[in-house]
Amino acid sequence: MRFPDVVLRLPDWVAAFLPDPDRAFPSAEDRMDLAVELARLNVEHGTGGPFGAGVFERESGRLLSLGVNLVVPARCSSAHAEIVAIAIAQEVLGHYDLGSTPAPTYELVASTEPCAMCLGAVYWSGVRGLVCGARDEDARAVGFDEGPKPPDWVQSLERRGIAVLQDVLRDRARAVLVQYRDAGGPLYNARQG
Amino acid sequence: MRFPDVVLRLPDWVAAFLPDPDRAFPSAEDRMDLAVELARLNVEHGTGGPFGAGVFERESGRLLSLGVNLVVPARCSSAHAEIVAIAIAQEVLGHYDLGSTPAPTYELVASTEPCAMCLGAVYWSGVRGLVCGARDEDARAVGFDEGPKPPDWVQSLERRGIAVLQDVLRDRARAVLVQYRDAGGPLYNARQG
Repeated sequence: MRFPDVVLRLPDWVAAFLPDPDRAFPSAEDRMDLAVELARLNVEHGTGGPFGAGVFERESGRLLSLGVNLVVPARCSSAHAEIVAIAIAQEVLGHYDLGSTPAPTYELVASTEPCAMCLGAVYWSGVRGLVCGARDEDARAVGFDEGPKPPDWVQSLERRGIAVLQDVLRDRARAVLVQYRDAGGPLYNARQG
Repeated sequence: MRFPDVVLRLPDWVAAFLPDPDRAFPSAEDRMDLAVELARLNVEHGTGGPFGAGVFERESGRLLSLGVNLVVPARCSSAHAEIVAIAIAQEVLGHYDLGSTPAPTYELVASTEPCAMCLGAVYWSGVRGLVCGARDEDARAVGFDEGPKPPDWVQSLERRGIAVLQDVLRDRARAVLVQYRDAGGPLYNARQG
């Protein structure tokens, strides 16, 4: 009796989309622009849900990894954009802890605030910052379920040394969620008992 | 610019350990015995943290998949036993939702109560039951961090149609945690800001 491996692989279109590896993303808006564009292209290509994320060096703005929602194509309910981006970053660095060395430090940039699962993943990842675009209520407004998060989830991250920045390009990030809903995309996490 | 795939693969010793595929696990204790044994063997083989899990058909007790903690060997902070077991189950079924058909229904059996991340993963997985061995406080007592979970996390699962059973073989499950700590195993999620 053997079990299959689980493989998370970015869609083929990502390679053509990727910026010059030397390009830096200096501001939070520059980084969020990439995350939102990933979300938009994931919808446009029909390769998953309307969510994108990236892991960046906080100081230099260099892109370490990225992720898009792969739940449907990867047949994996945990393959949210944040989980994918963190896992690829750790594979690139060869370590399960993105905070294992004092420098550089890393931040996760997510086109929508993390669901309950991804919030937990952020605690364990070793990132030192979380930058969010659309709000939980924006995701809920189009029918996605963010799950039960502690009401003080922002403070829970900051108490652990993870700085949080919200509402970066929120309107653009929200527009991708609306575009997805209006196109009739599956709302796969919407079961409510 | 290309990014590597993320691959989650069970350790080699699992294949030899696996029971006859026709064997059923009728009771919660039978199922937990497997999860705890996986946790114990993962420590003994030095292939990860002291956590094991399995996905079972609720009625028949047939084993669909299993997982062990792979954080260190897979270089992936999300590779907790529950995440691995759920992802393999979904790969076996070929669907991201273990509740996508009315029957059979599935339950996740975990040697320790889920951390904040894995709790979120349970909501999205499609399982209809969660069976736990050691308690959060048992994991915390040996130095692991379970993260901020909603105080009513058991009820939050049950409100979503996921039945929860706690304290199954708790003493045996806890003993594996203590064995791991006493052997000096790394407590990788213990950063507190």
